[in-house]
Amino acid sequence: MNEQRTTKPTDLLPEPTLRRLPWYLAYVAMLKSDGVEYVSSTRIADDLAVDSSQIAKDLSFINIKGKTRIGYEVASLEKALRHFLGFSSRHNAIMAGCGSLGAALLQDSGLQRYGLNIVAGIDTSDRVVGTRIGDIEVSRPDELKELVRRLKINIGILAVPVEAAQAVADELVDAGIHAIWNFTPTRIRVPQEVVITNTSIYSHLAVMYNRLGIQKTL
Amino acid sequence: MNEQRTTKPTDLLPEPTLRRLPWYLAYVAMLKSDGVEYVSSTRIADDLAVDSSQIAKDLSFINIKGKTRIGYEVASLEKALRHFLGFSSRHNAIMAGCGSLGAALLQDSGLQRYGLNIVAGIDTSDRVVGTRIGDIEVSRPDELKELVRRLKINIGILAVPVEAAQAVADELVDAGIHAIWNFTPTRIRVPQEVVITNTSIYSHLAVMYNRLGIQKTL
Repeated sequence: MNEQRTTKPTDLLPEPTLRRLPWYLAYVAMLKSDGVEYVSSTRIADDLAVDSSQIAKDLSFINIKGKTRIGYEVASLEKALRHFLGFSSRHNAIMAGCGSLGAALLQDSGLQRYGLNIVAGIDTSDRVVGTRIGDIEVSRPDELKELVRRLKINIGILAVPVEAAQAVADELVDAGIHAIWNFTPTRIRVPQEVVITNTSIYSHLAVMYNRLGIQKTL
Repeated sequence: MNEQRTTKPTDLLPEPTLRRLPWYLAYVAMLKSDGVEYVSSTRIADDLAVDSSQIAKDLSFINIKGKTRIGYEVASLEKALRHFLGFSSRHNAIMAGCGSLGAALLQDSGLQRYGLNIVAGIDTSDRVVGTRIGDIEVSRPDELKELVRRLKINIGILAVPVEAAQAVADELVDAGIHAIWNFTPTRIRVPQEVVITNTSIYSHLAVMYNRLGIQKTL
């Protein structure tokens, strides 16, 4: 076998690469389900409209080699990407804020498929505490520390109202969380050792509206 | 009154500016609910950890002027930002794919508050077609054109499985949609005049896992 697949100890990857790797994964998963066995970087390049040298460079980070004139073995590439991206592991998370968006995310089984295992949720509202959403029971905020410790949680998902965002982020950090996935439209500050990932759904809306030129017609 | 607020006809805004404006909005909305009347760009800069000259530059796009030594009037700034970002208008949208993620988004009332009015949904599954999710009834894909025309829809939200993404995007474009909000982890191609906004939730997860160094310990 001419093919290697090892996860090399890697430094921080460039974020653009990290954002492209899931595209490649989605693409090769599709090829795999279509029964395709091999794919060249040229074909990936054509189908995804990404430069082929860029693809070779991106894939060099996961240290998988294609065969000359045949390309990458689809099944191996899919497995290697999924593994490298952390999607085949389980990452325990807590949902902070189980209102509209939080509850919606709790019911998205896609997150589970991508390795995110939401094992607990907290909310301040008496209407929500004690109820079940999807597979989890919503707890009171004062149970946060105990939940994080007992359930070995290291990711906090922030889906609280803007005005509570920083305070709840502080509590998550204080409880021992190592990463915060921030869905609020605001910017929060965390100690340098805590990972922060912003998914500001609503700011993407603003970009879309602007590109649509809607603001011109108001 | 020393203050101006007009929406000037503007060219394409830089995307980083467009992504920061919602932060400012979230921030001033919070100040407003706290009863604060004026805010200086220095204070915004301190509280949001953004350079104050950057803030002044960003806000220059919405053509709102602060008063010397007092700063911006909070209520006017909030209103101007909300207006400028298109959040105070109604934008009709259709949910293409009402499975896990699509159904979750349909139940997020936050989108409504940010001007996105999801008025219809389509799905291929017989289990889903004809049911109601949130406020909408799920229709069959062959009703797409008629729905878009009748309900004056110009935004398509793409939350279908990866393997269907491009085909459904093509159908949305064909039905007369002007913008696609792509939640699938794949890249889709659209004609140049169609706006495409990618919100790849799962690729954000990959970035977070990587930053957590989880891939090193596998």
